[in-house]
Amino acid sequence: MLKQNVQHLIQDMTLEEKIAQLVQLATPFFKGSSDQGFITGPMQEMGITDDVIRNTGSVLGGSGARETRNIQEAHLKENRHGIPLLMMADIVHGFKTIFPVPLAIGCSWDMDLAEKSAEIAAKEASVSGVHVTFAPMVDLVRDPRWGRVMESTGEDGFLNSEFARAFVRGFQGTDLTNDKDRVAACVKHFAAYGAPEGGRDYNTVNMSERQLRESYLPAYKAALDEGCEMVMTAFNTVDGIPATANKKLMRDLLRDEWGFDGVIISDWGAVKEQLPHGVAEDEAEAAYKALTAGVDIEMMTTCYVDHVKELVESGKLSESLVDESVERILTLKQKLGLFEDPYRGADEKRAEEVILCDEHRDVARELAAKSCVLLKNEGSVLPLQPTQKIALIGPFATNGDLMGPWSWQGAFDDVVKVDTGLLGKLTDPSLLTVADGCEVESVTTEQLEKAIRVASDADVIVLALGEASFMSGEAGCRADIRLPEPQLQLIQEMKKVGKPIVTVLFNGRPLDLHGVVDQVDAVLEAWYPGTEAGAAIADLLFGDVNPSGRLSMSFPYSVGQVPVYYNHFNTGRPQPTPENKERYLSHYLDIPNEPLFPFGFGLSYTEFKYDDVKLSGDVLTEDGAITASVTVTNTGDVAGEELVQLYIRDIAGDVVRPVKELKGYKKIVLEPGASEEVTFEITEEMLRYHHENLEFKSDAGKFTMFIGKNSHDVVSVPFRLVK
Amino acid sequence: MLKQNVQHLIQDMTLEEKIAQLVQLATPFFKGSSDQGFITGPMQEMGITDDVIRNTGSVLGGSGARETRNIQEAHLKENRHGIPLLMMADIVHGFKTIFPVPLAIGCSWDMDLAEKSAEIAAKEASVSGVHVTFAPMVDLVRDPRWGRVMESTGEDGFLNSEFARAFVRGFQGTDLTNDKDRVAACVKHFAAYGAPEGGRDYNTVNMSERQLRESYLPAYKAALDEGCEMVMTAFNTVDGIPATANKKLMRDLLRDEWGFDGVIISDWGAVKEQLPHGVAEDEAEAAYKALTAGVDIEMMTTCYVDHVKELVESGKLSESLVDESVERILTLKQKLGLFEDPYRGADEKRAEEVILCDEHRDVARELAAKSCVLLKNEGSVLPLQPTQKIALIGPFATNGDLMGPWSWQGAFDDVVKVDTGLLGKLTDPSLLTVADGCEVESVTTEQLEKAIRVASDADVIVLALGEASFMSGEAGCRADIRLPEPQLQLIQEMKKVGKPIVTVLFNGRPLDLHGVVDQVDAVLEAWYPGTEAGAAIADLLFGDVNPSGRLSMSFPYSVGQVPVYYNHFNTGRPQPTPENKERYLSHYLDIPNEPLFPFGFGLSYTEFKYDDVKLSGDVLTEDGAITASVTVTNTGDVAGEELVQLYIRDIAGDVVRPVKELKGYKKIVLEPGASEEVTFEITEEMLRYHHENLEFKSDAGKFTMFIGKNSHDVVSVPFRLVK
Repeated sequence: MLKQNVQHLIQDMTLEEKIAQLVQLATPFFKGSSDQGFITGPMQEMGITDDVIRNTGSVLGGSGARETRNIQEAHLKENRHGIPLLMMADIVHGFKTIFPVPLAIGCSWDMDLAEKSAEIAAKEASVSGVHVTFAPMVDLVRDPRWGRVMESTGEDGFLNSEFARAFVRGFQGTDLTNDKDRVAACVKHFAAYGAPEGGRDYNTVNMSERQLRESYLPAYKAALDEGCEMVMTAFNTVDGIPATANKKLMRDLLRDEWGFDGVIISDWGAVKEQLPHGVAEDEAEAAYKALTAGVDIEMMTTCYVDHVKELVESGKLSESLVDESVERILTLKQKLGLFEDPYRGADEKRAEEVILCDEHRDVARELAAKSCVLLKNEGSVLPLQPTQKIALIGPFATNGDLMGPWSWQGAFDDVVKVDTGLLGKLTDPSLLTVADGCEVESVTTEQLEKAIRVASDADVIVLALGEASFMSGEAGCRADIRLPEPQLQLIQEMKKVGKPIVTVLFNGRPLDLHGVVDQVDAVLEAWYPGTEAGAAIADLLFGDVNPSGRLSMSFPYSVGQVPVYYNHFNTGRPQPTPENKERYLSHYLDIPNEPLFPFGFGLSYTEFKYDDVKLSGDVLTEDGAITASVTVTNTGDVAGEELVQLYIRDIAGDVVRPVKELKGYKKIVLEPGASEEVTFEITEEMLRYHHENLEFKSDAGKFTMFIGKNSHDVVSVPFRLVK
Repeated sequence: MLKQNVQHLIQDMTLEEKIAQLVQLATPFFKGSSDQGFITGPMQEMGITDDVIRNTGSVLGGSGARETRNIQEAHLKENRHGIPLLMMADIVHGFKTIFPVPLAIGCSWDMDLAEKSAEIAAKEASVSGVHVTFAPMVDLVRDPRWGRVMESTGEDGFLNSEFARAFVRGFQGTDLTNDKDRVAACVKHFAAYGAPEGGRDYNTVNMSERQLRESYLPAYKAALDEGCEMVMTAFNTVDGIPATANKKLMRDLLRDEWGFDGVIISDWGAVKEQLPHGVAEDEAEAAYKALTAGVDIEMMTTCYVDHVKELVESGKLSESLVDESVERILTLKQKLGLFEDPYRGADEKRAEEVILCDEHRDVARELAAKSCVLLKNEGSVLPLQPTQKIALIGPFATNGDLMGPWSWQGAFDDVVKVDTGLLGKLTDPSLLTVADGCEVESVTTEQLEKAIRVASDADVIVLALGEASFMSGEAGCRADIRLPEPQLQLIQEMKKVGKPIVTVLFNGRPLDLHGVVDQVDAVLEAWYPGTEAGAAIADLLFGDVNPSGRLSMSFPYSVGQVPVYYNHFNTGRPQPTPENKERYLSHYLDIPNEPLFPFGFGLSYTEFKYDDVKLSGDVLTEDGAITASVTVTNTGDVAGEELVQLYIRDIAGDVVRPVKELKGYKKIVLEPGASEEVTFEITEEMLRYHHENLEFKSDAGKFTMFIGKNSHDVVSVPFRLVK
């Protein structure tokens, strides 16, 4: 269907029909849904009429080739224009084949695998009838109390932008119309949802426009630059105005300044949430504000359906605003080819072949292994030897809860559990003994006693600890970010046994790891690795894969240090070293300023030596480039993958600049004894930032280039930009 | 001296002489100082010449009538224009007679006593030769990790503004020129120093201009409206630019928009701190930025002295900028009458009569008693009976460290300690036994054993616990805001003794009181009460004064809840009640959203009943007023003072409005059984706020009026504003 046809179609539609296109409802509202009528109470309360259902534009949460076909079929019978439904769903880190949570993927620093994971998620979703995924989530995060940090790739805008692009490429491919194995992407949550006050979900976000533009907006922009079709608004306020009613954010910035002409959808219920937020006295005002601000689709509330007609008829709202939104929605349907093939991709038979196929599982396993971060390995207790007697203990030893939040299509039964993974490496299964030790949040004496017995009989203890997945994710916020007390107690009991202890952690946020890292010999941060969890963990623990993950979010020293992030400002009274406890410096009395583990940190089973960090010149001109280089040598006994990181600091700006900013990274694989020179090109463009007047440009003057294996352990070289 | 004389004088001065007026140095630089030459290292490094000293404009930290006279005398002999020095010092909550720390005064809600305390501080300082005090500090604070919350009156802009005015009135009086018992005030720290990220001193402050104007600026403005002579800049950045280099803040807002024409001084070293902040590459740039932005006096660094001359001579900086600053400084000297009487007020003999006189001590005692907040009193364990055997235990039982930070002129020996205070109430001194129990941050078995013995022998245990004063104040930041572990252990041991436990707390911040309030029978939050600490505590514990303090800063449930403050936004998904644990609401999984003790909270030895909360009408017009009223009855057995609080909420604004905002408060004293109707007038002016475009005005629409005994326990009545 062509653009003019879309416009003709809109001319044929009544105002009511057009408004209904702006509505998104969950599957139970629709004939053909397997849940239809199940939820009657709230649905009845919403007062949705058959007329609205018949003309609704999109569906939330439909999945399964049969159900989505049935819904579409029933719908097309009743819609007088034959306008197909858009099927949207949250396919965040996999559909049935679950990949690591995005924060874990963030630690892989692997854009190819990230893209591949999105491509596989798209394929499994598409054959199940999904047209649009509410992903990627690219919110910059600095507060581990917030449950949704697991859904972000981390604290750095540059790295998040790289991942945003990779995910969009993976979901959408290069020919969305014809490649039926792809789905449209919807970047979220616009904007700055990742900075809720107190780390409490949905809470107020407050920051200056400069900080918003400098740190928080780039990743959304990167997704759009990559062609992302949709944008979802955030639940929070931005400068006192809910994102969903924020004209400056959507109309002025997203539409006018950035030129985004795709569909903007509210988050679940967010249009109506203007009432509790306190910017609308009633639903009519909420509808007016959201539509005026730029929200095309209202998700799961009925302010538009109930009030836009009266707003247009009374002359308060121009019908052209409604037409514009309808045109964007119909254009997306057209781009997805739904007018020609309303069942796009949905195929029960193919779904059986594709979903959870070996190829998908292999990628999931590879990405899971690349996402784990080795935080400690004292005395080289890792890798394990296949001859060792292993006591696998902890609430995650035999537990399928390894997929993390946002894996609603994933099944515990499909997950490779930790015990299964380890057994896969052992020729003699009797070398592995297992005990719960405790539950996630409780413990009995019997559990502890059994764990002690099992541990006493082994050569090495592997503890599988962490947070239940409900403890992070949406609304999963914690004020105490330590492991639950019973698990800390289990560690203490295990320590008394006197065997080497390896701890594998499953969790959705950076934790305060006091009581863990100081007590055990090795710590592998595994996050929620997904369907292939146990297999990937076993690959790492036995050294079949050498750990290569690097943290994309700092681990705080304690919750009292939050927020902690590597690219902070220097202050006027920086502490020169952590040891310097002079009174009138910017520090705490009781803890260091430094995180427990910094951004970019991660160990390997081998060692890498950095030599000869240098610049090709110490003066950069506006149209020139200088080359930063380092020679990296694998000085250990096994091959390994190293992530070489480039940071830059602007010594004095028009406004304060961060102490370091990630500007590049390269992964290299080195055999034992091998060396490689790694180079980065530095150009003027990399030095630009938002000035006092928000102009985005660079300044002549002094800079520092840093190369290192993480954001803390770096070698620096000064240079100047000359203009 | 007249204005034109100041201008003539400036015409006679060389550029070097003028620049030297912009310098402030500490006493050791000056002849006549008792410390002269003591600090040679850093002073020499600063490269200050005799020429500069001879022409310097002001002195930091001078005190004592003799020393300041000597310095002034020596200076006038050498200064060819006979320009006297301005003597400035930090007189924050008393000079020698130390009043409670400002956060405690905030809990008194008593503007008359606050003013009186400043008047006394001014008098003691003035007779000691001080001309200007660096007070009041009016920074709004929401993060108890920050050590300087003790120096603020709390988390509410309205209440802080009231105190700002009271302190300025107290310091300056109504005729600063002729009333030699007064000193000029310098409001600080401009601006938003109270919002450092992570609660870490000197750290980055980030907020939108709306939040700055709506919440943080009003108290500075209030001080200036009251005639405050000077402003001190803050150490922090404001929107990416250090306050001390922030042209928008000082030149545009403070000077042009607010019309402030007094002296602006940097905080200690803050001009040069632009280098570590990273907005100046060298000291010349730092001097240029600070002077251009509006800083008249550079405190304790030499960027101006070393570079302003070359900046002027090279044409980069207009000499008129220097002249303007010099004129402001000389005008202040003129206003203080220093040209006529350079020793203004300094009088050794009078100092002896005035300082720590009975009248001053009486006010300190009264204000201290009004500043303490009774947080718990189960089973009416308080007030104590003079016949009870009391075991006074804890690191503050016999300790003089009860004045808190910023009491550099206060002497431990002058402080009434807790044991002394209690003894003053007992006819039989043997009724009081005392033990340390522990130190502030350590404990021995012997200490615990002695405490148990002493406690076992008593009828009631009084624990005197808290933070050493170095644990708060400037750079006194804590990531863990509980009582130190040894004191929590002491509480556990005391609980085992099985006697009623009263805990008196001495601390500089709201603490996480878990392990305290849940363990003991009564808790009196005493903050740092000052010179008359023990006497005031005894007055309260024995019921000679009925506690009437009300918190001016929320006590968090735990550090993981920070920031917590009563006038927050509602969010789009507010939790209807703390019991409602539905997943998708804005709450933590592990702690409530509510603080442990809310803003405005405090108990009494009697009970007050609130009846008949009403409005005189439910419609407010723009030029009208409606009256809110409540009948309060003392239903207990003793007379008491109650603080009736008025809050208002704007239901729907152009931008989100707080769930409640303090708009009025009244103190009443009621005999047992007595009732009083308390009324508040509500006018349109009280409903104004900063709109999306920063316009300050009200909107027609729905509002809620609340009356209550604290910010949580309120009765609400709706009304409308009609325009």
